This record gives sequence, C-alpha cells and structure tokens, in this order.
Amino acid sequence: MSATTNRLKSLPKLSALWAIIKVLSMPRPLVMLGEGSAQRLCRSMADQGITRVLVITDDVLAKLGTVDPLIAELKSHGVETTLFTGVRPDPTFEVVEAGLAACKAARANAILVVGGGSAIDAGKVIALAASTGKTPQQLVGVLKGRKPSLPFFVVTSTSGTGSEASVAAVISDSTTHIKSLLVDPAMVPRAAALDPLITQGMPASVTAETGVDALTHALEGWVSGFSNAETDGYNSTAVRMIFKHLETACNEPKNLAAREAMALASHYAGICLNITAVGYVHAIAHQLGANYGVPHGRANAMVLPHVLTFNKPNCLKKYALLARDLGFASAQQNDSAAADALISNVHELLSRLPLKNQGDLIKRSDYERIAHDALTEAHGMYSVPRYMVEADVYRMLDGVVAAAR
Amino acid sequence: MSATTNRLKSLPKLSALWAIIKVLSMPRPLVMLGEGSAQRLCRSMADQGITRVLVITDDVLAKLGTVDPLIAELKSHGVETTLFTGVRPDPTFEVVEAGLAACKAARANAILVVGGGSAIDAGKVIALAASTGKTPQQLVGVLKGRKPSLPFFVVTSTSGTGSEASVAAVISDSTTHIKSLLVDPAMVPRAAALDPLITQGMPASVTAETGVDALTHALEGWVSGFSNAETDGYNSTAVRMIFKHLETACNEPKNLAAREAMALASHYAGICLNITAVGYVHAIAHQLGANYGVPHGRANAMVLPHVLTFNKPNCLKKYALLARDLGFASAQQNDSAAADALISNVHELLSRLPLKNQGDLIKRSDYERIAHDALTEAHGMYSVPRYMVEADVYRMLDGVVAAAR
Repeated sequence: MSATTNRLKSLPKLSALWAIIKVLSMPRPLVMLGEGSAQRLCRSMADQGITRVLVITDDVLAKLGTVDPLIAELKSHGVETTLFTGVRPDPTFEVVEAGLAACKAARANAILVVGGGSAIDAGKVIALAASTGKTPQQLVGVLKGRKPSLPFFVVTSTSGTGSEASVAAVISDSTTHIKSLLVDPAMVPRAAALDPLITQGMPASVTAETGVDALTHALEGWVSGFSNAETDGYNSTAVRMIFKHLETACNEPKNLAAREAMALASHYAGICLNITAVGYVHAIAHQLGANYGVPHGRANAMVLPHVLTFNKPNCLKKYALLARDLGFASAQQNDSAAADALISNVHELLSRLPLKNQGDLIKRSDYERIAHDALTEAHGMYSVPRYMVEADVYRMLDGVVAAAR
Repeated sequence: MSATTNRLKSLPKLSALWAIIKVLSMPRPLVMLGEGSAQRLCRSMADQGITRVLVITDDVLAKLGTVDPLIAELKSHGVETTLFTGVRPDPTFEVVEAGLAACKAARANAILVVGGGSAIDAGKVIALAASTGKTPQQLVGVLKGRKPSLPFFVVTSTSGTGSEASVAAVISDSTTHIKSLLVDPAMVPRAAALDPLITQGMPASVTAETGVDALTHALEGWVSGFSNAETDGYNSTAVRMIFKHLETACNEPKNLAAREAMALASHYAGICLNITAVGYVHAIAHQLGANYGVPHGRANAMVLPHVLTFNKPNCLKKYALLARDLGFASAQQNDSAAADALISNVHELLSRLPLKNQGDLIKRSDYERIAHDALTEAHGMYSVPRYMVEADVYRMLDGVVAAAR
C-alpha cells in the first residue's frame, strides 16, 4: 500500500473548522433504549409519515435474519421497504454509490441502517447525498451538505463505534486506499435504537473489540484538551459502565442487561467524540488497520496500555480522579499511585477479554511510515495531552510487538 | 391581582439573547422510551456512580404510589433516596427553596423528578442552584448558572409540556405573582424516561389538556419565524402523531401505544421550543391562567382556533403544506382551501376531546389588561407570523367567550 494509506483527506482545514463546529448546535439522535426498541423505532418511522424505506445492512446480519422482524414491523404499518446488503467493513465510495443508486431506484423517503460503524457511516453519506443531489465525493470535508439529510434512522448491531451519535463518517477510496473524512451535523440520525435483542447476536470477540473501542473513546476523550464538564460526565460514566459490564457481555452473550449497558456506554462515549475527538491510540491503531488489516477495536486494545503510560506524566490529576472515582485508588494514595492503579486496571481488564494480539504482524521496516502517518493524523485533528515525536511512536510499537510475544 | 401578573421578568434582554442561545450548542436529554423505561432510567443512574438521590414529585403522584417502584429500583442498586413531595402547580420560589434545603440536607448527588411541567421546572432550578451555590433568584435570567447542574433526571408523568427537553424554567413569586423566566442549557436533564406505564395514570381531562399543549407548541413552532428544517420535521411529525393518538389516549387510558406516541410527540414539540419558542396562543393563554386560574392546556385549547384563523393570511403556504402532508387537503385544492382544512380539522379534534371551555370566566373589564400583558409577552420573545394589536386581542377574546356559550 502507498505511503498515503489512511492519511485523511483535507486535514489542514479540519483543526480550524473543528473550533467552529464545537460552538455550532450539535444535534443528538433521539435514543430508544432497551429490549424491543428497534421495533419501536420502526413504528415511530411510520408515525413520521415515512412510506418507502431503504434498509441498509451487511450480508452477515441479513443472513442471520436480524433485519427480518424490523422489515416485517415496517410493512405492518404500510411502509414499503427495499433491502441493500452491500455494506462491507471500511466502506468504499463504490459501496456508497451502489447504496445511493438503490435509494434512488426505490424512491426511498427515509433510510434505516441496521449495523455497526461501517454500515452507519455508509448510511450517513447515502442519506446526505440523496437529499442534496451531491456525489459522495463532493461531500468530503466539513459542512459540504448545506441541507438536511434524508430522514435517517439507525439500529446499532455492535456497541463501540458510537457512530450513531457522531457528525462524522469515513469512506475509503478502493484504489488509493485513502480514507476521506466527512463531517456534517446533518448526518446525525434522527433516532437510534440501542436494542440488546439486536446486539446479543455479536460473537464474544466482536463484543470485546467494539467494547474496547468505546473504552478507548472514553479514555482518550477524558484527557483530550477539548474535554469539558459535560464530556467528563459522559466519559467517566462510560468507563465505569464498561468496567462493570463488558466482561459479562463477552461471557454471557444473552445477558440483556449487560448488552444494554454496553450499548449505552458506547453511546455516551460516542456523544463526546463530536467534542473531544480521540488521540494517539486511534492515530496509531488506524495505521495497524490500514497496513495489516487488524480490526479497529483489536488494534486499539493493542495500543491503549502503551499510550496510557506515555500520557501519564501530563495526566496525573485526571487519571487519579478517575481511578478514585472508580474505586481503583483511595483518597490517601498520591496522584501518581492512583494513576498507576487506573493503568493497571485497564491492563487487567484487557487481559481478561477474548482479544487477539496481532503485534507479530508489525514489521520494523514499516515503523517510519506508521509513525509518520499516525502523527500526521493526530497532530492535524486531536488535542493530545502529551506531544509525541516519531521516536515515541517507535517505542509504542516496540511495546506492542513485545506484548504479542 | 396586579397588572404585572404573569409579566415575565427581564424580558427586554431576552429577544437579543435568544439569538445567541440559538447558535450555542443545545443539549438534549438522552431519551429512554417505552414500557419500563422509568425503571431503566433508575438503573442507569446507579451505573453513573450516583449514590444519593433527591426524588421530587407532587402529592398526587406520591399518593398514587407512582414513585414507589422507582424508589425501590434505586434502592435495589444501593442508591439512597430522599423524597420531596412539595411541588405545586406553577411552582414558587418557596417551593424551590424548600426543595433545595431538602437536597442539601440529603447531601444528594443527583435529582430525579417524577412529574409534569411544574415538577420538572422546580427540579431544574433546584439542581442548578445546588451545584452553583447561587440562590434561585440569582439564577433568574439567561445563562446565570455558569456551571453544570447537579446530575438531573426526569420521568415524565404527563405528555405535553415538553419541559424535559427545554432549556427554560418558569418560577412564580408567591406575593407579586410575577413569573420569572430562567434560561440555561445546563438545566436540560441528562436523561428523560417517557414511560407509558407512568403516563397511563393521567385522567382523560389531563391527557387532553396536556396533549393540546403539545399540539399548540407544534403548531405555533410550525409558523414561527425561528423555524428551520429540523424544527419543521419534528413539529409536523408531532402534529401528525397527536391527530392519530390523542383521542385514543383520552378514551383508552391503558392503551400504551397511544400513551407512548403522545409522550414522543410532546417530546418532539418540546425539542423545538428551544428554537422556535411559541406565539400568541401561549401569550394569551398565560393571561387566562394568571387571571382566572384556567389550566394551561385548557386555556390553549380555548385560544388556539382563533389565533390559527388570525394567522392564516400570513401562513397560507405553511398551513397548506401541513394540511396536504396530513391528508386533510389534496394537491388540487388551492392554498387557502387547504389552510382552511387544517384549521377545521384542529377545530374538530378539539371538539372531540374532553376539554372544558371556561370562556365564561373572562370579564370584558379585564380585556385591556389581558391584551397588554399578552402583547408584552409575545412581542418580547416570540417571532409571530402576523402582528397583533390590542384590538385584535379583544377580537380573540370575544371569540373565546362566544365559543363558551
């Protein structure tokens, strides 16, 4: 793959515009939570006068029959449906164009996504392209839509990406492998159902990987320079809930309370993404995905402990606050000891989860490219607590490789 | 009562600041919808590390036992609770101060309101005063809190006020009867449960009155000068849902689907209040409440048809659009005929609901004061589609009185 792999398009503009987006009204989806909420979401779509829906999902969920009862619910209220199952992980412009063509052919007046981050991202762009008449490529960048999206609804099938809450989507170019970022508040869904009857279908490995993605969002947001009282409230709650429920969700797939709590924790962390963005864990993990195809949550889990430790000197107070809040440290312990307790508890949680460490894939000869691309991403967009140079990334990668042995 | 009754304090500042508030990030509560969502909200409070809760409600709900299962749910998760039942309709500063004292005595680290608009408004101010250390009086005006609120949660017991979604609260002075407006995004609850198992306790008259309040929010927002594509989507959906479900909710109190739809419709209209505010119906209805004690929703129902007709010349297109969208008019009918169809359908809906018309209370000798106070309220805050002078208000009141005969 080329050296530009995974470098995000139109980066220079972003950091300045981020400041503007922060003060703009940030829409939130109406969230329907709990058993049966997916069905309830479909009922409310009919209430909203929607008559023709493009249902977007992937092959796996379609074959599992996950979408069938939802299509039946829509039909029982007189809503016509067309199914599009062409979503793939890391959706490309081709996928989005195919979905857009299906949307036009069906003359859909709304879109329902049943899926994880990839399907939701594809759906966001299809819905915005359908209403604006622009091509997906024309929507790359910030606030390019300038119009409301086609009414857009989401049923989440995983608990981690938080994409149902975010103003952003990432679409890949299938030839150059460059990932393009689209940011537009119009892409936030009208409503999202977090239904444990849907997420209980996730295998343990996917539950763990997506759960760690949510944990990473919350921990990177917690120490982001963009964090504020509101994001701190949501992110600390998300971390608390993940520590309490993620293992159970992995070990007892049908435990609906744990599934529901994980969906909510992921959503809380997702809400904050619009304000705090992420940090070096994501910047490095994205390169492991682009270069070696490591699934995103798994890559986060590999990198997270090392970046947590790297950030510690500049995050003593915030780490300690969270550690005491979660009961990992007492009020008597000093900040450094409390911060260590947070880091070691994260380590231990990760070690108990069904996560595969693929550090053995990382080649020493790729370090330079990985470091360059990771720092380009991070320094263009994230407000990180401690500045990294290329040698620091090398040390992170050494740590990841060593941990895999 | 004095001529200043119901005139809102610090009005002159508001219209200018409204423009600022519009572009600020407008927080939304996380909404938990459906049967059992109140219980689910309590569980999520425990997940958020909350340990001591002040539960605020009114005497009626406390006696009906509505709050008992919620307190039991909180206790089952180790959360201590203190019950405050001192809320009254149109809460006064004394009520808020008593609640604040109870909050401090309990060393509560969160507030849960189970109630309608009055309880929610009182809870908002108690939660903000508790976290900021300011007195309720010091919070009167716009953005006076300057800090996050104590974590604040709501279970709605009525479906109409939309207060669970709004950045505003109204508190009355028990001596002067002047109502003070407090506006602060920090007052939006973290989460709100819209649970039909809770709202099914409403008598038919309250269901009708609060439902008409929601209808009025949606219709006044629909023609507000502050309306935009997003509010138009929510408001038209709210009107559609109210036409479909309000009668059923009145006639079949245990019809949970109708109860749920009404709660959601009210919430949709409530979301828009932060942007569109309201109009002359509310401005006049508030005076009927202040002068004659007419319940708010009932007063809205008495005034709504007359203001709809008054506004028609300047709202032809929007009325017609909504009428066609709702199936009240065909594409062939001209805008004026379609607008008339909307007005007559509202008339007919109101006539089928268990609403009492108290127009007989209105005295001709009060017209001048009512008109003066209504226009002061409306012209200080609302972006109305057609300008009213005092003589127009007289005609509205004549219409209300005539309809009561």
